[in-house]
Amino acid sequence: MNIDSFPSKLLDKAVNEFSKLPGIGKKTALRLVLHLLKQTNEEVYTFGNSIIELKEKVKHCKKCNNISDEDICNICSNKKRNQLIVCVVENIKDVMAIENTQQFKGLYHVLGGIISPMDGIGPSDLKIDSLINKVENDDISELILALSTTMEGDATNYYIFKKLKQYNIKISILARGVAFGDELQYADELTLGRSIINRTIYEQ
Amino acid sequence: MNIDSFPSKLLDKAVNEFSKLPGIGKKTALRLVLHLLKQTNEEVYTFGNSIIELKEKVKHCKKCNNISDEDICNICSNKKRNQLIVCVVENIKDVMAIENTQQFKGLYHVLGGIISPMDGIGPSDLKIDSLINKVENDDISELILALSTTMEGDATNYYIFKKLKQYNIKISILARGVAFGDELQYADELTLGRSIINRTIYEQ
Repeated sequence: MNIDSFPSKLLDKAVNEFSKLPGIGKKTALRLVLHLLKQTNEEVYTFGNSIIELKEKVKHCKKCNNISDEDICNICSNKKRNQLIVCVVENIKDVMAIENTQQFKGLYHVLGGIISPMDGIGPSDLKIDSLINKVENDDISELILALSTTMEGDATNYYIFKKLKQYNIKISILARGVAFGDELQYADELTLGRSIINRTIYEQ
Repeated sequence: MNIDSFPSKLLDKAVNEFSKLPGIGKKTALRLVLHLLKQTNEEVYTFGNSIIELKEKVKHCKKCNNISDEDICNICSNKKRNQLIVCVVENIKDVMAIENTQQFKGLYHVLGGIISPMDGIGPSDLKIDSLINKVENDDISELILALSTTMEGDATNYYIFKKLKQYNIKISILARGVAFGDELQYADELTLGRSIINRTIYEQ
């Protein structure tokens, strides 16, 4: 569908804005905009304003760099959480994924990315200095590196490890192995090999 | 991903708003919102405001019911177009699709829907009265019914035809036949049958 035949400049503009979103083409953008156009004025205002308000008011937690409504996020300010263990993650989605497991009760440190020379992202673009500061000044016993198991993740793990090995701190990474529901014949050799090396005692 | 672990009420609200859009789930909504959060304040403002402005300012053309920035849309107000032929379509997307063919130089009449008892849409929900008015009062020689070739489209065609047959006006529907690129063995019988009945003289 050719955008030139749009009967309204306002419609054209809104569709253009929506089609800038990742994975949204012109046709989908038009569908979304026409859907919104059918809603009440108030609903459309709430929609448009929710993203403007988020952008204007949202903060990054001063301790962990996670997205937050306050200066200190509700994880860092929760005194019931274990302040001695810090889980280093790439971004806020990873925080949410780990929180959903309900298996981690420590604090987080959000790097805001991962070392990726291909994308022009170096250590200085990430919150690594503040992580080193944290290790130097806070009372931390263990750092869990929970980055993606990709080349970039491995490089970032190695960089952080090198920077921190001088400190008296335990550094761990996530266990690698076959996922729940995997069929062994389809598991890749590296993962399967690692899951044999790191096998655990069978428990009921 | 569980929405309960959202660290920010503002983020939660924006994601909720985006996930109300058709075909956008919570995960996609989060991806879109986090993408927008990475843009500049101005870009986010332009995005949010484009849809609010559209909703506030957009009009429906008083003549054809198409979406328009002015009281009369740029198709109806174009004196170069053939004012004698009116193409009846379901919605604005169909106007754009036909405009893209560049084969039609008349005017449109947008019904704003199609008769569909299953969805509770009857003739009174559509701009059929204003179509009858138009036929009565304007100088129109031909009405092209360009509705979907579905049961609902056929029912709407029939309803309009019944209402207008008393007037001295030519009423036509779109030709049905095999589409360009179709392989005959996969064409349905109805369409293939119709394309034989309505065969046209071969021209170079």
